[in-house]
Amino acid sequence: MAVNWHMHRLRVRYQETDQMSVVYHANYANWFEIGRTEYIRDAGVPYRAFEDKGLLLPVTELVIKFEKPALYDDLVLICTRVAEMSPLRVAFESQVRRVLPEEAGGAETEATTTAGDPPGELLVRGATKHVWVNRDWKPHRLDRAAPELYERLQSLYNSSK
Amino acid sequence: MAVNWHMHRLRVRYQETDQMSVVYHANYANWFEIGRTEYIRDAGVPYRAFEDKGLLLPVTELVIKFEKPALYDDLVLICTRVAEMSPLRVAFESQVRRVLPEEAGGAETEATTTAGDPPGELLVRGATKHVWVNRDWKPHRLDRAAPELYERLQSLYNSSK
Amino acid sequence: MAVNWHMHRLRVRYQETDQMSVVYHANYANWFEIGRTEYIRDAGVPYRAFEDKGLLLPVTELVIKFEKPALYDDLVLICTRVAEMSPLRVAFESQVRRVLPEEAGGAETEATTTAGDPPGELLVRGATKHVWVNRDWKPHRLDRAAPELYERLQSLYNSSK
Amino acid sequence: MAVNWHMHRLRVRYQETDQMSVVYHANYANWFEIGRTEYIRDAGVPYRAFEDKGLLLPVTELVIKFEKPALYDDLVLICTRVAEMSPLRVAFESQVRRVLPEEAGGAETEATTTAGDPPGELLVRGATKHVWVNRDWKPHRLDRAAPELYERLQSLYNSSK
Repeated sequence: MAVNWHMHRLRVRYQETDQMSVVYHANYANWFEIGRTEYIRDAGVPYRAFEDKGLLLPVTELVIKFEKPALYDDLVLICTRVAEMSPLRVAFESQVRRVLPEEAGGAETEATTTAGDPPGELLVRGATKHVWVNRDWKPHRLDRAAPELYERLQSLYNSSK
Repeated sequence: MAVNWHMHRLRVRYQETDQMSVVYHANYANWFEIGRTEYIRDAGVPYRAFEDKGLLLPVTELVIKFEKPALYDDLVLICTRVAEMSPLRVAFESQVRRVLPEEAGGAETEATTTAGDPPGELLVRGATKHVWVNRDWKPHRLDRAAPELYERLQSLYNSSK
Repeated sequence: MAVNWHMHRLRVRYQETDQMSVVYHANYANWFEIGRTEYIRDAGVPYRAFEDKGLLLPVTELVIKFEKPALYDDLVLICTRVAEMSPLRVAFESQVRRVLPEEAGGAETEATTTAGDPPGELLVRGATKHVWVNRDWKPHRLDRAAPELYERLQSLYNSSK
Repeated sequence: MAVNWHMHRLRVRYQETDQMSVVYHANYANWFEIGRTEYIRDAGVPYRAFEDKGLLLPVTELVIKFEKPALYDDLVLICTRVAEMSPLRVAFESQVRRVLPEEAGGAETEATTTAGDPPGELLVRGATKHVWVNRDWKPHRLDRAAPELYERLQSLYNSSK
């Protein structure tokens, strides 16, 4: 049972290009993070709210497969979904897809999800793993530290299946 | 038969930190690339020479495992070695290790290699895969496009075992 | 006779923060550039079109005055207007203002302009100067290299007064 | 009576280039900051020591004049000197100069200063103004908050004239 993709649109910035005239590869890791942030914002939980509770969600593992490069001024969709979730850990899957303006859908900040394949041309796909930690960088169960946030994330995950 | 690590020293920049007070995770991908560049520079082949021949070496796959975060002003060693090499493809392994000034060895631009474990505290490790392409972004065998550069890389790889 | 401000909305990225828990100061230069790009896009001239004609518009001078820092996840308006324009040179003024979601207006890619003061709280203001150059980085008059683009920019500038 | 330039060497990173095949202009602001940091480190005061005392030194004003672009893999000298200093404020002047390996002098972390013009080709020059603030971002006199650090900075400034 597939989980729906959350989609967030970005325009490629000049600074993100390099002298190969493509997006410098490390920027996709940044875009994945933006995709995750917008995903949970649309669950009603700005990531800022976790940090206000003293919780951080560092990346413990990152995998990226580069198919085709994104170019300056491209419109890209950052597609995100939760692959796994426990009280202590979360894993996400991510895709970056190039879209035409007419495929790109609504505004950047509008939530859009799709149950099937997202539109556009697949450029990059990857995955990240994370662990909830407290300010001392020690693992910390989200369901104990912030039960209402945990619940909201959990129900987002369930409803998106 | 292990391949020697090439080591290049960096100091963590303020801009590389984020509000978690650690290095933003995408920067390690940039550091890995700097490590690869210095590795082949020390083989007598500045990466610029490949681009002058119309050859690019984009990343096709990136894996990073984050053990501990690097902090502002830390001295870190970027450790790099070739994991695999063919006329069309190269794969590297990378580590980022925190060192004290006395462990950090010589100047940033001096080549240093070690057959055993590099010094310092392991923070992050990872791997990248690459393919040689021409300006049209088509795969292009290095031994045909630039035989002398290929030979130098090959002998660096062999001699480091 | 004041020139209208063009406004473009951004959300502050995690990567743009530093360990002072504010936006790292160099990022405002990047935001100014994004503001300029969106300004001329809304004149019907994507900056990409200039580069396709072999024209570049490097920055020759940058001034930034920092009043208050932008914070992670803030919505900011990048406000841009042309201060001066000749066939060879352009000068822009820029502001970064923090807005609440309800002040932020339409979607990121919608053009909005205002004749008076833009909404929100002034964080940073500045100015840039530019010169049109060709691929050899030599000054090149825009009205000769791309008359129709020059005309469109010129009429944008005039109509905005 | 001119103040000596402090010089710190950098190599241009691939990520710092853009598709104009030059260094993206905002990076010079980052390099200026690295130059300032190394300048005061060589006065025996790592910037980290100020932050440990709860003091920050944000930029209040930045001016950059771009003469020629730095290119990928260039060796550049970041030249820094204190232009003005009071218990509450500091102003720096900065230059970025391209050097050949033989002009570049010692290792990146070695302090070098010059009373005359620094070597190499001038690419970019600029200036920054700063104010000492506490954790609440309120102006805070350095001589009261950290008299010994203030004294060391002051004597560095005096001795360099």
